[in-house]
Amino acid sequence: MIRKDIQFDKKGRLRHFLTTEGISRPLITDILDYAENFASVVNKPVKKAPLLRGKTIANLFFEASTRTRTTFELAAKRLSADVININIQTSATKKGESLLDMLRNLEAMHTDMFIVRHMTSGAAHFIAEHVAPHISVINAGDGSHAHPTQAMLDMFTIRRHKPDFTALRVAIVGDIMHSRVARSQIHALNILGVPDVRVIGPHTLIPPHVENMGVHVFHQVEQGLRDADVIIMLRLQRERMQGALLPSEAEYFANYGLTPDKLALAKPDAIVMHPGPINRGVEIDSTVADGPQSVILEQVTNGLAVRMAIMAMVLGRTSDEEVAS
Amino acid sequence: MIRKDIQFDKKGRLRHFLTTEGISRPLITDILDYAENFASVVNKPVKKAPLLRGKTIANLFFEASTRTRTTFELAAKRLSADVININIQTSATKKGESLLDMLRNLEAMHTDMFIVRHMTSGAAHFIAEHVAPHISVINAGDGSHAHPTQAMLDMFTIRRHKPDFTALRVAIVGDIMHSRVARSQIHALNILGVPDVRVIGPHTLIPPHVENMGVHVFHQVEQGLRDADVIIMLRLQRERMQGALLPSEAEYFANYGLTPDKLALAKPDAIVMHPGPINRGVEIDSTVADGPQSVILEQVTNGLAVRMAIMAMVLGRTSDEEVAS
Amino acid sequence: MIRKDIQFDKKGRLRHFLTTEGISRPLITDILDYAENFASVVNKPVKKAPLLRGKTIANLFFEASTRTRTTFELAAKRLSADVININIQTSATKKGESLLDMLRNLEAMHTDMFIVRHMTSGAAHFIAEHVAPHISVINAGDGSHAHPTQAMLDMFTIRRHKPDFTALRVAIVGDIMHSRVARSQIHALNILGVPDVRVIGPHTLIPPHVENMGVHVFHQVEQGLRDADVIIMLRLQRERMQGALLPSEAEYFANYGLTPDKLALAKPDAIVMHPGPINRGVEIDSTVADGPQSVILEQVTNGLAVRMAIMAMVLGRTSDEEVAS
Repeated sequence: MIRKDIQFDKKGRLRHFLTTEGISRPLITDILDYAENFASVVNKPVKKAPLLRGKTIANLFFEASTRTRTTFELAAKRLSADVININIQTSATKKGESLLDMLRNLEAMHTDMFIVRHMTSGAAHFIAEHVAPHISVINAGDGSHAHPTQAMLDMFTIRRHKPDFTALRVAIVGDIMHSRVARSQIHALNILGVPDVRVIGPHTLIPPHVENMGVHVFHQVEQGLRDADVIIMLRLQRERMQGALLPSEAEYFANYGLTPDKLALAKPDAIVMHPGPINRGVEIDSTVADGPQSVILEQVTNGLAVRMAIMAMVLGRTSDEEVAS
Repeated sequence: MIRKDIQFDKKGRLRHFLTTEGISRPLITDILDYAENFASVVNKPVKKAPLLRGKTIANLFFEASTRTRTTFELAAKRLSADVININIQTSATKKGESLLDMLRNLEAMHTDMFIVRHMTSGAAHFIAEHVAPHISVINAGDGSHAHPTQAMLDMFTIRRHKPDFTALRVAIVGDIMHSRVARSQIHALNILGVPDVRVIGPHTLIPPHVENMGVHVFHQVEQGLRDADVIIMLRLQRERMQGALLPSEAEYFANYGLTPDKLALAKPDAIVMHPGPINRGVEIDSTVADGPQSVILEQVTNGLAVRMAIMAMVLGRTSDEEVAS
Repeated sequence: MIRKDIQFDKKGRLRHFLTTEGISRPLITDILDYAENFASVVNKPVKKAPLLRGKTIANLFFEASTRTRTTFELAAKRLSADVININIQTSATKKGESLLDMLRNLEAMHTDMFIVRHMTSGAAHFIAEHVAPHISVINAGDGSHAHPTQAMLDMFTIRRHKPDFTALRVAIVGDIMHSRVARSQIHALNILGVPDVRVIGPHTLIPPHVENMGVHVFHQVEQGLRDADVIIMLRLQRERMQGALLPSEAEYFANYGLTPDKLALAKPDAIVMHPGPINRGVEIDSTVADGPQSVILEQVTNGLAVRMAIMAMVLGRTSDEEVAS
């Protein structure tokens, strides 16, 4: 089992950001409130804040992701930090160096934060358990486990449109089984008091006993979307088709793809979200993706503000300790 | 057909820089004059200007070019901008994301400028037609169509040696057919009032009806170079040889390679230019490339100043609008 | 033969840093003393010094090395320099451009320093002999010849634990034959007056006539380690095994791997060093690598300070000249 308290230091302040599971509602609210400041910074002509000047942030991407790496890199640069991109494929781990030895070396170079993306669930926790006291770890996606900064930017986006979480019906549609995004969203939505979180998808893509996470399961999208305030479409990984979990893209789109007709079943002011990159004509129709209810690009913009907030909050803490030590 | 007015905003100010075709002589002169300021910045001990502090510039290189990417990256950093290099090969477009969706995402991250290099003619225009109002696009080379910043640095270099464009004879030698550099140069030279622009090359490498661009065509290099003030040698793409357009490198060099003998046909104070990287012994003899009339390395240095000027001019405009909005 | 005086300008100041061979004891001491300042900078909350603001440093890594490139990049950024990473594999040298033409172009872009890593001995010297007067070259490892910044960070680390070099016994263990690290260490240790420098390894991995470098040769590790103050373990390149120079990793570890038993032969306060990345269970036992006598991670930390010192010293010199010119 993964320890949840590892995210906090002895004074209870956020040290790592690995999962939304088990964090408190006030903490989520603090992060969202803090991110509001950065949402205005990125609209200024000079989009810089000096908060992390002199800090060094290492991007450790064991799994390629241009988009996520770019948003973290931009967030770090706008906070005036130095950023090092470590290409794991060509690094010394290929020469037989262990992961832990690589981490020890980066620590010895006085880096302050690791942004970790890994194909294995639990990788960011493993790293967080083994880093030196002055290092913070942010999970940028680990296997099918968690993608907590994505979930936080989604909460930020929802709150801007629907401020009262306790009155919402949120429907998450697609491959729940393999989605780290969905897992992190479900935890956050529950903590924020959303009374009705729904997951919708074919039997093969809904994990067994998912009801225990506090969600309602629907296999018919028409039932699941009814009166929803927020619809979150998940990206369909095309490799699932080869895995015999799904018949074809066309059939998936017919059953679960978000079209104007299906959208009409939700509340008239429902918002449509997607973590990107979108597969047009697979899980979402272009009319909907580009339509007035879509907030997909707002999510991208908010992602910068939320990541700036989390990085600044986590490193703000460690600076105190460094100054004291 | 490609719209020329797309480069300007409603107030007639330069918004994108996509082609030298159809721009005005005063605009070219403004850019060259502005670049003179940056030519002195790069000679100072601290080669930094704070003009683009807080701006984010994304290098979108669909076609690899270390040299061009490096000069744009250096120019941006010397203007204090943040630079993001997007490796198109590993980016989400591989996951099936469309080009336009990728652009929308970069826009949503509040980038301010795209530097675009693409193997397809018209790609930068296509992107410029579809970007959000706050984004500027600079064409860093599209297919065989245009390479306008290269042409501008060439004009800058010529003017430093030969200030009166209306008294010049300029000879461009080589593969005119496939050269985006030549096209952009010809437009700029005509706009600046150069009375005699010559293109020189074998029949297979001169496009039909090129006279309509306002140039004189020569197939004999000895005739074409006679009394030239400026000689621009083009890089010979070796793949042309396989395409049966050329017999051999040796024969090409014998016929069109710039040797001291051929150079002697030009005016005694003629300058020799080349956009680089040079093929020694193919289109140019080392004696000439490294000789006193060569300004090839000055072109590289001037490229930084000219690119700084264009980036600052284009983004200076958009900042006004952002501040107002 | 390689010229040693190429490292200095006409006023005798350090211009390049290519080898520890033939430099003076006061120069080494100056570098180590200067590095002490940077060792404290990296412990401050804002790990930045503005010394190289406006300078441009190009990483030219012909041989991949994530770790060394990262330390140079971090060192440069902490000195506020701009850093350009040139990926040699995709650069114009692939288009047939010569190395010297590539250097000329980087010079023309007003870069100030090249950090060179190359698989060929003498490559950094070759480049230093051919660069423009305003450029400094730092050798980040050339073939089996030299790795002088590694040697300097090793001297720094030794001095922090054993301040009097003239009272030391230093043992270097492993593949001396192919080690640029060992060569640079031996020169530095001799210059600093270490009375007993030992090299230890199998016959196949000790170069003939190495005694001429001022070292004592041992083939039995138990004899060589006796009463050592400093033990430097070298990384075993696994490809040596295929080259029939070594029987097997297990046999190498049995004979030369540093275990607690062998370490006990050295002085009780001996320190254990390794340039990294370490091969656990090949040249060093984990108990020793992670034990109280190991200073391996200190070496990494000191590497940043020492590289900052060398870069600042070398470029401090050239700025004077630029200001004057």
